[in-house]
Amino acid sequence: MALRYLTAKVAQQIDEELMNSAGAFSLDQLMELAGLACAQTLAKAYNKEKYPRVLVCCGPGNQGGDGLVAARHLGMFGYQPTIYMPKPGSKDIYKRLHKQCSNMKISTLPPEVSPDSLRDALSSSDVVLDAIFGFSFKGPVRAPFDSALQLISSSRVPIVSVDIPSGWDVEKGNAEGVGLNPDVLISLTAPKEGVRSFGGRHFLGGRFVPISMAEKFELNLPNYPGFDQIVELPRADSQKL
Amino acid sequence: MALRYLTAKVAQQIDEELMNSAGAFSLDQLMELAGLACAQTLAKAYNKEKYPRVLVCCGPGNQGGDGLVAARHLGMFGYQPTIYMPKPGSKDIYKRLHKQCSNMKISTLPPEVSPDSLRDALSSSDVVLDAIFGFSFKGPVRAPFDSALQLISSSRVPIVSVDIPSGWDVEKGNAEGVGLNPDVLISLTAPKEGVRSFGGRHFLGGRFVPISMAEKFELNLPNYPGFDQIVELPRADSQKL
Repeated sequence: MALRYLTAKVAQQIDEELMNSAGAFSLDQLMELAGLACAQTLAKAYNKEKYPRVLVCCGPGNQGGDGLVAARHLGMFGYQPTIYMPKPGSKDIYKRLHKQCSNMKISTLPPEVSPDSLRDALSSSDVVLDAIFGFSFKGPVRAPFDSALQLISSSRVPIVSVDIPSGWDVEKGNAEGVGLNPDVLISLTAPKEGVRSFGGRHFLGGRFVPISMAEKFELNLPNYPGFDQIVELPRADSQKL
Repeated sequence: MALRYLTAKVAQQIDEELMNSAGAFSLDQLMELAGLACAQTLAKAYNKEKYPRVLVCCGPGNQGGDGLVAARHLGMFGYQPTIYMPKPGSKDIYKRLHKQCSNMKISTLPPEVSPDSLRDALSSSDVVLDAIFGFSFKGPVRAPFDSALQLISSSRVPIVSVDIPSGWDVEKGNAEGVGLNPDVLISLTAPKEGVRSFGGRHFLGGRFVPISMAEKFELNLPNYPGFDQIVELPRADSQKL
């Protein structure tokens, strides 16, 4: 049975069911596990000896929250993360997650950072964690993220994208060509339609989907190894598409 | 610099500071990471091929919550956990964590389980996760936990205890001899005074203490390996005490 790729609508439905009274998860729990999975993926793909400096790029929504959790865990793992967060989220959880990063002495670029300063930050980064847009993204990409995506792309710094590379359509992928081209992708819960032909290293995280829900949505999730929070998927070019 | 062993009072203070406005953590987050560390410890010490059946014993407080989180992760890791929870906690989070276990098809012994039934459950378990009492425990042990501790002890099933073995005084250890004698211990945040001379395998979890707090409380925490949530400590008998 093949792994299911989700439409934006089904991804949204799963997210809601995880957190409704039947699923019983809190956003704090899911974000903690998702962010930990993102940090583990980056650590697996880019070791801290060679790639210590991570620019963690966070959007204003839940995806950005995952990024903040990942930044904290990366700090715990011994990386030197810096947060780029041009539009901080307004939710209380977002502020708390950011405070937790500050307590880890993780610095954040000023919100009104100039293109030159962002370029400087990129040139002193070894890898980018892209947690800007997630599965609820609807284009087009607006300021300040339009120019940010261009700067990140042109920096040639390796990119690890969370769930859906920023700028990609959740279902159609990078058809319009305005999105990032990550080297590594970490899909959360289950991969989305838009990344079906993603050719880089592809990990799956979200080892919290209960059996009942995996069955209901016919996700056909792979087995996670040991007690990792992530599992690497076969490369798209070695799969029957 | 030696690892600091905490008094009950300091353990309480650290817990409060992690969750006040400065620490900014939610209980959901900390419990998720603590419970994951407990599950990882059990998985590291008792592999699922030889020890698949885990009786997860949960008290009514936050320690029991850690146990419920651990039970869920153990289910995710491929173990067959069963929950023993004679006094379910009244907090909403406790109920949600239990629901999450039910969604994982993890069964729970009835609250009014008879000594014979508990004995049966123990005899069909390969390992016990003891999450009954934590660092806020004050003796004496009351019913139904007094007889439960006796049954668990006499079953000879290997025990992994969380933070402080149930029945031990947080500072004086098992001086009165009424507590469990675990084979493995997972201390959370930092070990407590009472387990200073614990002779079994001793792990530390709680890879969420921010640098600022570790410095303030002079915890002298060891480095955690890779992206694990736990680190094994040297055996007490190989340490200078």
